[in-house]
Amino acid sequence: MAPPSHFSNVAATVPVVVDKPQQCSNALDADDFRRQGHQVIDFIAEYYGGMADYPVHPSVTPGFLRNLLPASAPSRAEPDAFSSALKDIRDHILPGMTHWQSPRHFAHFPASSSTVGALGEALTAGINVVPFTWAASPAATELEMVVVDWLGKALHLPETLLFAGGGGGTLLGTSCEAILCALVAARDRKLAEIGGRRIGDLVVYCSDQTHFAFRKAARIAGILREHIREIQTCHANMFALSATALEAAMQADVEAGLVPLFVCATVGTTQTTAVDPIGELCTVTAPHGVWVHVDAAYAGSALVCPEFRHVINGVESVDSFSMNAHKWLLTNNDCCAMWVKKPSELIAALGTEQEYILKDSASEGHDIVDYKDWTMTLTRRFRALKMWLVLRCYGIDGLREHIRSHVRMAEAFENLVRADERFEVVTDRQFALVCFRLRSPEKYGGEKTANELNRSLLEEVNAVTLGPYMSSANVGGMYMLRCAVGSTLTEDCHVTDGWKVVQDRATSILRKMEIIYSVLG
Amino acid sequence: MAPPSHFSNVAATVPVVVDKPQQCSNALDADDFRRQGHQVIDFIAEYYGGMADYPVHPSVTPGFLRNLLPASAPSRAEPDAFSSALKDIRDHILPGMTHWQSPRHFAHFPASSSTVGALGEALTAGINVVPFTWAASPAATELEMVVVDWLGKALHLPETLLFAGGGGGTLLGTSCEAILCALVAARDRKLAEIGGRRIGDLVVYCSDQTHFAFRKAARIAGILREHIREIQTCHANMFALSATALEAAMQADVEAGLVPLFVCATVGTTQTTAVDPIGELCTVTAPHGVWVHVDAAYAGSALVCPEFRHVINGVESVDSFSMNAHKWLLTNNDCCAMWVKKPSELIAALGTEQEYILKDSASEGHDIVDYKDWTMTLTRRFRALKMWLVLRCYGIDGLREHIRSHVRMAEAFENLVRADERFEVVTDRQFALVCFRLRSPEKYGGEKTANELNRSLLEEVNAVTLGPYMSSANVGGMYMLRCAVGSTLTEDCHVTDGWKVVQDRATSILRKMEIIYSVLG
Repeated sequence: MAPPSHFSNVAATVPVVVDKPQQCSNALDADDFRRQGHQVIDFIAEYYGGMADYPVHPSVTPGFLRNLLPASAPSRAEPDAFSSALKDIRDHILPGMTHWQSPRHFAHFPASSSTVGALGEALTAGINVVPFTWAASPAATELEMVVVDWLGKALHLPETLLFAGGGGGTLLGTSCEAILCALVAARDRKLAEIGGRRIGDLVVYCSDQTHFAFRKAARIAGILREHIREIQTCHANMFALSATALEAAMQADVEAGLVPLFVCATVGTTQTTAVDPIGELCTVTAPHGVWVHVDAAYAGSALVCPEFRHVINGVESVDSFSMNAHKWLLTNNDCCAMWVKKPSELIAALGTEQEYILKDSASEGHDIVDYKDWTMTLTRRFRALKMWLVLRCYGIDGLREHIRSHVRMAEAFENLVRADERFEVVTDRQFALVCFRLRSPEKYGGEKTANELNRSLLEEVNAVTLGPYMSSANVGGMYMLRCAVGSTLTEDCHVTDGWKVVQDRATSILRKMEIIYSVLG
Repeated sequence: MAPPSHFSNVAATVPVVVDKPQQCSNALDADDFRRQGHQVIDFIAEYYGGMADYPVHPSVTPGFLRNLLPASAPSRAEPDAFSSALKDIRDHILPGMTHWQSPRHFAHFPASSSTVGALGEALTAGINVVPFTWAASPAATELEMVVVDWLGKALHLPETLLFAGGGGGTLLGTSCEAILCALVAARDRKLAEIGGRRIGDLVVYCSDQTHFAFRKAARIAGILREHIREIQTCHANMFALSATALEAAMQADVEAGLVPLFVCATVGTTQTTAVDPIGELCTVTAPHGVWVHVDAAYAGSALVCPEFRHVINGVESVDSFSMNAHKWLLTNNDCCAMWVKKPSELIAALGTEQEYILKDSASEGHDIVDYKDWTMTLTRRFRALKMWLVLRCYGIDGLREHIRSHVRMAEAFENLVRADERFEVVTDRQFALVCFRLRSPEKYGGEKTANELNRSLLEEVNAVTLGPYMSSANVGGMYMLRCAVGSTLTEDCHVTDGWKVVQDRATSILRKMEIIYSVLG
């Protein structure tokens, strides 16, 4: 079957006149870069300007793009391949994307981005260094050390987690990496005490609301699956991890001859932004020598505002802390910041020395940081540049205003939900996420049909062309809709318009139920 | 002590007039992006144009940059902070970088980059999606599936590793991740047979030349450190892993009641680009059900040329394969491609299901890929875009010419070394790396002083302003210099000029030895 489209034709069959050796010896030509680069900037600017015109989520079926593309890469590039490729991105790829930056993206946690964050990435790609040791790019390592201290202070973290206070931080890709690094450091610290062969006795703890990233990390680190304890949470406690329940679980494990190792506390869970009580958790874990990590992937950004500082009360006692600046702090994907109290424990677990790593005579005898020894990868990206640009170009005040404007919009959405008696807000709003659901009328089955009703509601809401895009949570047996305000482009009107779509779809669904009820009796 | 420089003054103390709420509601403003973006393009183009004027490696001491910067991020952004920041990057950060793209960067493996690769990253940052499931950005997942098949075919990989043949691939950040994912899949496959508590009995194998990435991955995955076997290599065998020695090691472990799990074979080791004999290794590991992974981080790119296909003879039998397109295939950092024969084994180890992940009715019943289940992270970047652009805009022929031009230049360097009797080429050149050393004259101690002599030579070569930047290897007790041709900007003249510096420094060092010898007798 011949590929039908221009998309595949261009890549596969257009005849070509290319001066090959020329092309490749110039692959970093400054003038080519200028010409192509300005095209790219205009392309992205146009995308931002027209973002609201895209449905957040495309109506496509699996294979829609694969079927357009030829089975192999072209042997020869077509003339002006870069311009043709940009055209294909516009015509074929963008229409098949979920637009995470859309002002109507209220699902998951929307991507947090900015012009400065995007251009910081562009600069990083252009400069293209691999700062795996201090010597491999001194300015990159030093800027990272500075920026994690800047960020940690801005988030009101205790000094003991910063370089300034004997701890230190680094910038990774994702929370999965941060949690894994912390867990491996904790594991090796514990095994050094009890012997490496007892890895099968180690037990780790989280709540049933903890992100899967933690279970993934625990599996990777060789913790037996049956030793990953997910402690049940409840609505009455707003789905936070109970210190009492944790204490009981650890005690039971100790009595069974097992060894409590690690607890992952969450500040702002993915489903409902629940906040685990860090101080209480530290109190009960301390007697067991358990490593406490705080995963503040989403809500960590809110700590830039002093009014949220209380959610990490007790953080002085934790061993490590991570948050994703790409989730809510105007920093484009990816940028996870991790801090530890004792960098030497990371290095003991993950460090290396090899002859082929260039030692710089300038660095000898100095207390330098080689970030390759802090994390699970050796090659790494110069993420500090964009984080530095974001902090510098928006300032702490600017970032606070950014967070507060989203919190205000979420509050407005919450008030709209509360004002409509057909709906209920299910969990207390803490940040910029509202978890809500349509109450199922008693005559249609009440609680028994509520989950199904809300599943239909979400499906219908997300099917509205140019409507809002929301997601769901399922906690304590309750299915609910999630409206997460977090896209940089979101304004009041998108929130109120989104709510109107929800109301409208609810009215329609209830009317359909009414009809079915009256027919079936 | 007041920070002295403009750099810190600007960030900390310049008085400010900023309309804060305005600024943040416009953080993705298309016109701002256009204005700042064009600045960035010109900035990078200027950097490329002037790359040759920078010393590859800066003369700075630890703290040089940290001491310039204030201790905290600014509360308020200064007016036109973005332009000021660009100026500071030019004046303070770039002069403190190691310029991995410099035409005189011959150390490690230089970063492989191109205008298209850099701009692919810029586009990815601008579009800023998180394609963790198919539904979370259908076009991103599909383009990744297409592009790993394109790349796999271009590299002459067997069809069984491609989606087209029942396997499949993905794009990660680094080889560390690829090796770890493969190892965890292998571990869980084996533990499913023998029981999870036997994790302490598992043994993994590599050579003493295998990159530390493997030992790091093994430690992370919970393999006991004493069960990581580094099999010794030798000069006579060009530092390749011997299948006979591997077989003996596995047999000894089995007799000791241990369980052989995994071997990491390297095609193109970091120190000398040694090539492990894949076919022979697969033959001896097969009876033990050992997982064979091929790490072709560097040399994988060369497979685009049919004349290098033979270095992976036997690859049909391996379980997984990875290479870094960012190392030598014009693709900016980061881009590691990994392929596996049985994706279901990755998913069994790393997969998840959670309610909050939006299921798309369009995808139900289809054989879709959710890449979050393939790797160690959930959040991921849209790396496929730049890889697709590189393949499309340079074409397979263009990439071949790129590789061949570097191989030709390395060959030329090798010939220069061989033409100077004071030097020797230590290991056979296979790709674009030449490992060589200065022979230590017998009267100055011969072999006994050779390592020290070459250490001094490297130090002197790297100290030459605007000279080449090389690194070292230390294998089989021999210290040698490494000259790796791989920077996109490198031309013949840089190679010959670099060699002249090496010769000149050698002459100087030998003269100094002569003097010391004549004085001390």
